[in-house]
Amino acid sequence: MSSQPPHSTLLIPGPIEFDDAVLQSMSHYSESHVGPAFVATFGETLSLLRKLFQTTDPASQPFVLSGSGTLGWDLVAANLVEPGEDVLVLTTGYFSDGFADCFKIYGANVTQVTAPVGSRPQLPDIEKALLEKKYKMITVTHVDTSTGVLSELKNLSELVHRVSPDTLIVVDGVCSVACEEIAFDEWKLDGVVTASQKAIGCPAGLSISMFSGRAMQAFQSRKSPSRSYFASMKNWTPIMQNYEAKKPSYFATPSPQLVHALHTALTQILTKPLAERFAKHKKASDRIKGAVADLGLKQVAANPDDQAHGMTAIYLPDEVKAAELLPNLSKKGVIFAGGIHKAIAQKYIRFGHMGVSVTQPERGDIDKAIKALQDGLTECGYQKA
Amino acid sequence: MSSQPPHSTLLIPGPIEFDDAVLQSMSHYSESHVGPAFVATFGETLSLLRKLFQTTDPASQPFVLSGSGTLGWDLVAANLVEPGEDVLVLTTGYFSDGFADCFKIYGANVTQVTAPVGSRPQLPDIEKALLEKKYKMITVTHVDTSTGVLSELKNLSELVHRVSPDTLIVVDGVCSVACEEIAFDEWKLDGVVTASQKAIGCPAGLSISMFSGRAMQAFQSRKSPSRSYFASMKNWTPIMQNYEAKKPSYFATPSPQLVHALHTALTQILTKPLAERFAKHKKASDRIKGAVADLGLKQVAANPDDQAHGMTAIYLPDEVKAAELLPNLSKKGVIFAGGIHKAIAQKYIRFGHMGVSVTQPERGDIDKAIKALQDGLTECGYQKA
Repeated sequence: MSSQPPHSTLLIPGPIEFDDAVLQSMSHYSESHVGPAFVATFGETLSLLRKLFQTTDPASQPFVLSGSGTLGWDLVAANLVEPGEDVLVLTTGYFSDGFADCFKIYGANVTQVTAPVGSRPQLPDIEKALLEKKYKMITVTHVDTSTGVLSELKNLSELVHRVSPDTLIVVDGVCSVACEEIAFDEWKLDGVVTASQKAIGCPAGLSISMFSGRAMQAFQSRKSPSRSYFASMKNWTPIMQNYEAKKPSYFATPSPQLVHALHTALTQILTKPLAERFAKHKKASDRIKGAVADLGLKQVAANPDDQAHGMTAIYLPDEVKAAELLPNLSKKGVIFAGGIHKAIAQKYIRFGHMGVSVTQPERGDIDKAIKALQDGLTECGYQKA
Repeated sequence: MSSQPPHSTLLIPGPIEFDDAVLQSMSHYSESHVGPAFVATFGETLSLLRKLFQTTDPASQPFVLSGSGTLGWDLVAANLVEPGEDVLVLTTGYFSDGFADCFKIYGANVTQVTAPVGSRPQLPDIEKALLEKKYKMITVTHVDTSTGVLSELKNLSELVHRVSPDTLIVVDGVCSVACEEIAFDEWKLDGVVTASQKAIGCPAGLSISMFSGRAMQAFQSRKSPSRSYFASMKNWTPIMQNYEAKKPSYFATPSPQLVHALHTALTQILTKPLAERFAKHKKASDRIKGAVADLGLKQVAANPDDQAHGMTAIYLPDEVKAAELLPNLSKKGVIFAGGIHKAIAQKYIRFGHMGVSVTQPERGDIDKAIKALQDGLTECGYQKA
């Protein structure tokens, strides 16, 4: 029996529904941010992140900062790239465009490899771009929350290491970490940035990231200082290292309550093999995508290999308006998200299926959402052709 | 009867002890950051901040961002000052030095008016500095958390408006907002940045600020773009204005739980006249400072007019080490903070007295802390001369 009051089930691509124990950790009594109890909790949290990202390389460096997922872009752009350096941004939608804008603010020269809405840049095009210029960094949005397009990391990393081995590989994993497989060491990634409120299942308010020894080296050998103060790796790296070594340290006050909640969420995730977690998300996703197809509807992500497993972006039939369907679903106790990709914003909706809604089927969230979608579409005038 | 488990009383200069209802708001069930319920809560929170800062000028602009108090420095330095412009930083300790470092990262030319440890720059010295150069901005740390030195805002603002009327006046109010008087409109301030976890009494994780119409104008008329992406006023201003108008809007995901807690904290604060709240903090402070004097100890802030009312920085007797006294106090159930000002770090401790520990005397926090300090000093070998 949940300790949460009855409420509509939140099935947007983040924030997601939270486990009771995680929410209770948010109410933790006040602690000193440099006291031994909290230092131990924060230190353990950083170590747990190494397991979540599947990295055992001691040179890998986790960061947990107060902020939203977007702050991770600043962390990358202000620290790992210097003004005038070239960055290749693989573009799959709204969030890749945002990452590109962030790089420009910090003075990088940005080249984007684009793809039509609902698809992702293909490896031959990426190879061509990499051969044209020496890039300091390539970035990829693992799951673009605006389209539900999934990018492949393993093959991409192999390509980059083959044709441009000095190029740092940085992943925007905001909508993928903890629901899509990420083997940080094995795939030789240099950075993954994410947020607390998606598949990790901790309320919003934390920017979470992991960087490789090679990325940290790139930061150490900068010729110019970090371009951010709050998001400066110079300011934060010793703090993160001290916390993980269980030593008190201060740059700016972390949020003990959010860190406690993250600790609880990570502990829950890591009680079971990660492979099992990813498989559960794939199974739920397959079921949802099957139901969408049964309804005669198309996904924004057109190719089955490019479809995310923690969310589904669904094109609406012409006769159904999102402005009518979403409130209808809300009355049925299910909250979906509207479109956000500028080119198609009014034409689709987004269904998030991450975390406890997937791993605790006894909650019935997915069943309820599929039923609501079927009924809601009918009530809004849709009849399958 | 508190719903919190028994725990040591946190009396450091932030985070502070939190009210039960505020902590319970941290466990709010998950909501969409763009859904009508949360949009209303966030919008009301922004309007409540206008009351807390005592501003009725509709041109004033509040911001609530995920981040720590330090992020407020970036918000000021990356948006309101352009590279090469001159900033005058009034320096009272560790936190003024940090603000100066932040400006340098964003390309400002920083001049500091310094003062000996435990005092603050005096008006004639500030006037002299203002007459030497045309400054875009002057900053003052209202209460420097490292020393407990209180700066005067009203007289300072009068001086600046008299001798350098175009200079923006920005206040670091991290350790002063909600325990020291700040009359934003009446004192003609242009910016006050603060954090959630001090006298406002909401867990850490939010950067909270208020800017004048004049400051927003300075941002609008920048020749170069904002130097930060996550802390960009261009990105956030429309979002804050939309939330306050109860319209959904998105740049980066806010933390619904923290915003609920802030809403609860502000609602509690504003049920009573602010003057009463400030008077209560002054009365508790006077009592604590009296007890410190009775013990024969000196404060870091030497001049009674320069002493903060939400914290007290206390020089230890030569024979007592902080490393011995602080654990002794902790065993008595009272957490004080060590020193942080580099020049004197080992020689003093800090006692925070803000929020519920002051406004709810029935908690007995202050009584307990004074008794613990008296007993702890004796047990650590101190005898009043």
